[in-house]
Amino acid sequence: MEKGYIQIYTGNGKGKTTASLGLSLRAVCAGFNVFFGQFVKGMKYSELKAMEFLPNFEMKQYGRNCFIFNDPEPEDIRLAREGLEELGEKLSSGEYDLIVMDELNIALYYKLFSVEDVLDILDKKAEKTEIVITGRYAPEKLIERADLVTEMKEIKHYYTEGVQAREGIEK
Amino acid sequence: MEKGYIQIYTGNGKGKTTASLGLSLRAVCAGFNVFFGQFVKGMKYSELKAMEFLPNFEMKQYGRNCFIFNDPEPEDIRLAREGLEELGEKLSSGEYDLIVMDELNIALYYKLFSVEDVLDILDKKAEKTEIVITGRYAPEKLIERADLVTEMKEIKHYYTEGVQAREGIEK
Repeated sequence: MEKGYIQIYTGNGKGKTTASLGLSLRAVCAGFNVFFGQFVKGMKYSELKAMEFLPNFEMKQYGRNCFIFNDPEPEDIRLAREGLEELGEKLSSGEYDLIVMDELNIALYYKLFSVEDVLDILDKKAEKTEIVITGRYAPEKLIERADLVTEMKEIKHYYTEGVQAREGIEK
Repeated sequence: MEKGYIQIYTGNGKGKTTASLGLSLRAVCAGFNVFFGQFVKGMKYSELKAMEFLPNFEMKQYGRNCFIFNDPEPEDIRLAREGLEELGEKLSSGEYDLIVMDELNIALYYKLFSVEDVLDILDKKAEKTEIVITGRYAPEKLIERADLVTEMKEIKHYYTEGVQAREGIEK
């Protein structure tokens, strides 16, 4: 690509990680090189298998195998910071057309690193690299920095009727 | 899957078709059988190539190779109705875990068929089949029928600064 932008998918609705997966698929179809980094999560989601199907698609998780419920553990902070450093190198390298920073907003929400850390890294982005950042609670400073921001808004949700996350659909 | 639900992605923001592509990818990763039908559009988008990469993933378009600007042509109506009929057979067949009806709401907006036609077909859905319907302007009757509705809301968009749809990202 000639010029990559910074996109954010935020809000309380479904489809943020899912849209970034779909964007990755579309980019791979166009012959692009994609890296998909996932913060906070370390569970073995179905989508990890996508690496077996898709060329030029790498995926890596920077979280533990459980959700953060209250305060983060030192291990959560260590993994997230390692991830941010690694993604920083990748997004300045010029080797990728698309880099997804999935659940970055959640890592910020839990203060695993600061929004200034993220803005510093975004400043070093290679011109051509498109960045997608996802997660609820996108901070205002990140929204200001982004070119495109979409809020996924929950209008109606069957989870409120007791359906759990299902393999292959939600995870 | 044991029980499939009806999901709608609507709103003026980005990520509706993209999220349904991502959901298709995740479902394929879980070993599911996916059919992705696309109304109104007939342009050769990047994502059509996904069929080359993904097992158990079929994609078909039910539109012409241009957008509908004003009134639909008879050909638009014919293609959309054929598509709805075909998808109706597929979603009652029990052969699919996930069926995407991409831009169905736009087909309704242009009155290529009626919301009653769609509700009739949804009534015949196989128990296990998950349905994803996308497009702006989801009609109220369809929202009532759905289990999960997410609105993609535009907060900030670089298109307003003159960026055109880019291959591998928006198309």
